[in-house]
Amino acid sequence: MKDDPWSLEPGASVKSYQLPSRYEKNVALTLTNPDGLPFVQNARTPHHMLDGMITPNGLHFVISYGGPPDIDPDKHRLVIHGLVKRPLMFTLEALARYPMVSRISFLECGGNSAPLFSPQPIQSNVQALHGLTSCAEWTGVKLSTLLEETGIDPKAKWFIAEGADAPHLTRSVPMLKALDDAMIALYQNGERLMPGNGYPMRLLLPGYEGNMNVKYLRRIKLTAEPAMGFWEAKTYSQLLPSGQAYQFYFLQEVKSFITQPSPGTMLKQPGLYEISGVAYSGAGRITKVMVSADAGQSWAEAALQEPVLPKAFTRFRMAWRWNGSPSILQSRASDDAGNVQPTRAEFVARRGELKTMPPVVAFPNQHFNAVTSWAVETNGQVNHVYA
Amino acid sequence: MKDDPWSLEPGASVKSYQLPSRYEKNVALTLTNPDGLPFVQNARTPHHMLDGMITPNGLHFVISYGGPPDIDPDKHRLVIHGLVKRPLMFTLEALARYPMVSRISFLECGGNSAPLFSPQPIQSNVQALHGLTSCAEWTGVKLSTLLEETGIDPKAKWFIAEGADAPHLTRSVPMLKALDDAMIALYQNGERLMPGNGYPMRLLLPGYEGNMNVKYLRRIKLTAEPAMGFWEAKTYSQLLPSGQAYQFYFLQEVKSFITQPSPGTMLKQPGLYEISGVAYSGAGRITKVMVSADAGQSWAEAALQEPVLPKAFTRFRMAWRWNGSPSILQSRASDDAGNVQPTRAEFVARRGELKTMPPVVAFPNQHFNAVTSWAVETNGQVNHVYA
Repeated sequence: MKDDPWSLEPGASVKSYQLPSRYEKNVALTLTNPDGLPFVQNARTPHHMLDGMITPNGLHFVISYGGPPDIDPDKHRLVIHGLVKRPLMFTLEALARYPMVSRISFLECGGNSAPLFSPQPIQSNVQALHGLTSCAEWTGVKLSTLLEETGIDPKAKWFIAEGADAPHLTRSVPMLKALDDAMIALYQNGERLMPGNGYPMRLLLPGYEGNMNVKYLRRIKLTAEPAMGFWEAKTYSQLLPSGQAYQFYFLQEVKSFITQPSPGTMLKQPGLYEISGVAYSGAGRITKVMVSADAGQSWAEAALQEPVLPKAFTRFRMAWRWNGSPSILQSRASDDAGNVQPTRAEFVARRGELKTMPPVVAFPNQHFNAVTSWAVETNGQVNHVYA
Repeated sequence: MKDDPWSLEPGASVKSYQLPSRYEKNVALTLTNPDGLPFVQNARTPHHMLDGMITPNGLHFVISYGGPPDIDPDKHRLVIHGLVKRPLMFTLEALARYPMVSRISFLECGGNSAPLFSPQPIQSNVQALHGLTSCAEWTGVKLSTLLEETGIDPKAKWFIAEGADAPHLTRSVPMLKALDDAMIALYQNGERLMPGNGYPMRLLLPGYEGNMNVKYLRRIKLTAEPAMGFWEAKTYSQLLPSGQAYQFYFLQEVKSFITQPSPGTMLKQPGLYEISGVAYSGAGRITKVMVSADAGQSWAEAALQEPVLPKAFTRFRMAWRWNGSPSILQSRASDDAGNVQPTRAEFVARRGELKTMPPVVAFPNQHFNAVTSWAVETNGQVNHVYA
């Protein structure tokens, strides 16, 4: 056997910031608005080409309404005011002197998986269907640590977080979350936040819908009432089939999806494969993921990759021998708060579905967490189906 | 207060692979050989500017003797042969069908911290002194899984791993490790390995010196005896003061260092700071990190950031009130195998030190794991000292 060319000649020079091989160019965020025109930019994580629990910073999903701003970290300030005893303003340098915490936590857009509200299954890959969620190690200062400095007026029941970029996104968050695990995140997988993910600081509300995790955070105001801002009054108030709305519905509920195999992969011949995917719950820790290869007639328990952390991606894995006949793969996760991921039928009965196929500017499109089904055809192709 | 410019205008467009802000340009690997001339290239991790346990892929340390090769993953092959029952050759696609595992694990060059063998403390920052270690989530196939396929001749006591890049690095590893936690790693923090870290596949031997974790892995040969290759016969055979040598001394022993504050940081005024750093052990899990601010006269136990994982970075943290007087900061880690990090005096008594100041081409320079000391001067400057 002859040596390959790369075994015979010197390689490249190491760069001061490493980038993936040129052979991995297709492992990329898909962009809905690559030229950054003045409307929303969505960038989706390629889950079908990743493995493990960590999403690398280059590929963490982004939703941006104003485009990532070019913030000078030395000039950025965070103000905490309103119903506090002592309003305070923090520089990044001042924040860096406080006790820090790290946690591995997923983030998910409330609108992730919205295509699954359509009455017929949309033929897209897992990146297009579920790409608005990612998981990273976040490090920063707990909001409760800073509130010890400002003091809290007992009338404060909410805080309103505001971003420094042009859209000035404003969201209201209950004080209970401020005193629990809310964090002012400064680092993402060890390095400072990516510009698309809130550089130089963002609010992190583990388990709560992405939009509330305000990026470019510049202001926290403690209040007696919520702000009733644009986002919470409109987009993130879920209309239900009953005509009522879920308002202030924050939690990203227990969910899982299979990333391997998934649409776009081809199973070239029958034999042994690994079924693998991610499970997560905003309510806590994943306790169990059941996997079916026959559309839910029979189930087997998948192996969960340790460490299984609360409000973090948990990679599940199961060996599967494909005999070449049509199969429908599903995963169904449970969490330690007692929640079980619903089937799509259960979910739609409660939450509704679109009446016509997208593209439509219509609700409902938020907080989809039901079971996803992939059909493996006899030729080895994988399709999205409702089953 | 006037709005900053980034609060008034649209931002950038999101790219398909995110990169850090232009304000973070100095958060970079330091390169000993930036033009990739035909000798070793070292790229060191900027620990003083990172936080958490994960090293982002852009900043994972690299040591490269031939330069990262430009390997076509579809043409790369891994061969397992020698004392096996059935020699096998694997494509990347074939490997990807096997059951995978993920683990967060540090890697460390055996020569990391070599400057601390000098008889006087070298005034450098933590990146220069300890930058040849990093920690990532690695995902791949356990070597034991592949050896179930090839079978093992009972005469096999070692395996010899060989890289596909031009230097064809060869290292011998005991079969015990092959059957324990050795992995053929394909993913690093979720995405495919960086070219500097072994793309498309490397051997991962959790806790063993970096050089043995052969990158660009193309061959594993099971043998009765070790290869006595260049690296294990020369560089990685440690000469001891007694005139004897540590041969086949693989383990990266229990170690810690403080990253904040550290040389290059300035403490602008007395007050509250967080002392923070990383601890790790190739022998297992960190159980305790003691921190001193008075050169080891008194110690207090630091908080360990959960999750504390075996053979992974563990971030330790301690609040510290600096009263403005000279202080000497030290950290000392223990692991669950019962090991305690030695003081420099204890270490030097056993392992020796250089007789003259570097640069010298001389040994010993390997497996330094003693306590590091940072002196905080009254003006807030931080210096490297022996204490």
